[in-house]
Amino acid sequence: MKLLRSWVDSANAAATDFPLNNLPCGVFSIGDEAGRCGVAIGDFILDISALEAEGLLKLADQPLFDVPFWNEFMEAGPAVWAEFRAQVTAMLREGASKRWVIEDHLVPIADAVLHLPFIVAEYTDFYAGRHHAENVAALLQTEMPPAWPHMPLGYNGRASSVVVSGSAVRRPWGQLKGAGFEAPIFAPSRRFDFELELGAIVGQASAHGYPVTVAEADVMIFGYVLLNDWSARDIQAWESQPLGPFQGKATATSLSPWIVMKAALQPFRIATQPRAVALLPHLAEPGPLLYTIELEVALTPQNGVETVISRTNAAALSYAAAQQLAHHTTSGCAMNVGDLLGSGTISGATADSWGSLLELSHGGKAPVAIAGGARRFLEDGDTISLRGAASGDGYRIGFGACSGTVGAALADPYARD
Amino acid sequence: MKLLRSWVDSANAAATDFPLNNLPCGVFSIGDEAGRCGVAIGDFILDISALEAEGLLKLADQPLFDVPFWNEFMEAGPAVWAEFRAQVTAMLREGASKRWVIEDHLVPIADAVLHLPFIVAEYTDFYAGRHHAENVAALLQTEMPPAWPHMPLGYNGRASSVVVSGSAVRRPWGQLKGAGFEAPIFAPSRRFDFELELGAIVGQASAHGYPVTVAEADVMIFGYVLLNDWSARDIQAWESQPLGPFQGKATATSLSPWIVMKAALQPFRIATQPRAVALLPHLAEPGPLLYTIELEVALTPQNGVETVISRTNAAALSYAAAQQLAHHTTSGCAMNVGDLLGSGTISGATADSWGSLLELSHGGKAPVAIAGGARRFLEDGDTISLRGAASGDGYRIGFGACSGTVGAALADPYARD
Repeated sequence: MKLLRSWVDSANAAATDFPLNNLPCGVFSIGDEAGRCGVAIGDFILDISALEAEGLLKLADQPLFDVPFWNEFMEAGPAVWAEFRAQVTAMLREGASKRWVIEDHLVPIADAVLHLPFIVAEYTDFYAGRHHAENVAALLQTEMPPAWPHMPLGYNGRASSVVVSGSAVRRPWGQLKGAGFEAPIFAPSRRFDFELELGAIVGQASAHGYPVTVAEADVMIFGYVLLNDWSARDIQAWESQPLGPFQGKATATSLSPWIVMKAALQPFRIATQPRAVALLPHLAEPGPLLYTIELEVALTPQNGVETVISRTNAAALSYAAAQQLAHHTTSGCAMNVGDLLGSGTISGATADSWGSLLELSHGGKAPVAIAGGARRFLEDGDTISLRGAASGDGYRIGFGACSGTVGAALADPYARD
Repeated sequence: MKLLRSWVDSANAAATDFPLNNLPCGVFSIGDEAGRCGVAIGDFILDISALEAEGLLKLADQPLFDVPFWNEFMEAGPAVWAEFRAQVTAMLREGASKRWVIEDHLVPIADAVLHLPFIVAEYTDFYAGRHHAENVAALLQTEMPPAWPHMPLGYNGRASSVVVSGSAVRRPWGQLKGAGFEAPIFAPSRRFDFELELGAIVGQASAHGYPVTVAEADVMIFGYVLLNDWSARDIQAWESQPLGPFQGKATATSLSPWIVMKAALQPFRIATQPRAVALLPHLAEPGPLLYTIELEVALTPQNGVETVISRTNAAALSYAAAQQLAHHTTSGCAMNVGDLLGSGTISGATADSWGSLLELSHGGKAPVAIAGGARRFLEDGDTISLRGAASGDGYRIGFGACSGTVGAALADPYARD
């Protein structure tokens, strides 16, 4: 696939995340104005809500973009998603006849505040990366979970914790119990961490009581975001038996501000790596379902210089989002528009490609070198930025950064004014 | 507390779940009409949506009951909840002057279809019953979870699985692996079970990033329902390591159709039983937080006769909903109006008071006698009815039954018309 050239010059630059091939979906606002739907194109946002309001974009009898979220558009379904891409591509392509009308609806990204692009219905986090699961098992000196080779293990997370890139993330308090201590204490987390993940957004609902196939699940998925599953390792370690992660994962989950539609990633599909054990038929891949997306994690201390502490690839996952979604419905569980599925930490095979400080620092035993220092876990003021892009012929499909800065814990969480 | 006498005669009967002291909140419809908010009074429903529309009930500048759910009313806050109870009590009390106006807005419960009374924002299920946790540990031949005495353990469930009493519950398919088998299979659950729980409904939001105290959490709780956490034990056993319950709990969660407001249960407050280990200060009880509510579980086979298979009491719980909610916010997790907190299975100390077949049948080893048969786990056609009431002086505060009938599994979950 080659670059589709646009009359928006900055969209033709090899380094942009947002060429015409991408058209990712976001919600933005300017000054005190209400949020509006837009797509990123080069250094600009095309104001989709305004285009629809003025009759320049028409997809359905009722408006889809008169709200500051993409859920209504997602609900309209895959045929409308394709029609949308066709109409917007025609508006922005080199030589487009309506350029002079469309141009009025371009806003510099630099002038906009970006918001969460969709209403998160429910949030589920999976554990679909083999290297991550193996690293965690080794750190805990346990075996791999017996069900891991047979299905995408996951747990329900907390939708109310999901925030957009740039939102402050305050170090949480929680119950902790150090090894060798008799009783737990209530204190700020000392092992606060990030997790590099890809998030899939469900764009079509399934009926309560009816499982969907992997192929059907793939059609239901609208698009992808970068996702940082902030994790308090000490809270998680103490609470997780026998019901799994809870408050250790509930402080915040940050998303990139742009949803990259599935169609934009289509040229980068790749099959999962060969499995030691064949999957049961209802979870087997009907074709390539993963994507080759280069990912990196950068850590920047307060007033410090950025260090890239990990580089990996989404193709390292062992279960694709469509398999996660199909498994999610096996019990008859209804899935809804706006459900978010986290992939779980994406770690590669080598130590420079691991997707969390837990792994990179060997559980805190081997500090990770950064410019001017080292990290076992995150310190107050640290900014974590996740970045990712699929690389085509002269262009890249990027997500924009997924960033968050760790704020100091509340001095007293129960102090009231 | 004594019975408040109403001019609705059936509300003064000692056996009714719905005396004037109760006024539980539901959503009902008649024929093909849209759903409306109502409170149960004796054998009738008082049509609250109609009273508000006609100006007979006025609580706020904007309407609260022009929607078929109680979320907007909950959001209005505790002062409005109290004013509501005062106005409706005045309308329905013996000797009320407006009886002839109000009477037009009574609908026989028998004529109505009852719906889920609120939009479930997110659903969390706790593990707050000590006897249940001890029974499960004994069945699995493991120790009690080390954190259990120190905090209310819980996991996030799936809000999309929540249905109202009377909804069909289809036996799920899932991945299972029998002891001694090399590989898992995909098959209908063979160990489908119920769990007797109380559900608490969060009626006020908390701010993201800020924990709430137990006392603040108690104020945030709007009311309570009976809750059946349908559980596929074989799916759960295979999937739960290390991330906890997922598809084994996602088939359905049934609620009683009536939310009993916290104010109606106030006279039945009781303290938790003495603890072996004191709680950390942020989870300690500022006063009695549990309720004395007698509970029972009835099993009725298809075309069969009902057997009450368990009788217990909500006072047996070790952590109250306010403690669950406070713990839920420790990490800064935001809680929202309509969040549902399940208590976990309520089991008493004796074998006739256990709240699941898993416990009653000793993990399937000791069938439970029922009229005309016996049960290890649920069979197709079985109806489970949960019932509960707090008993006052000549009256009871009931929830209405929480019932569901187990339907046969789909013959082929992936067959398409």
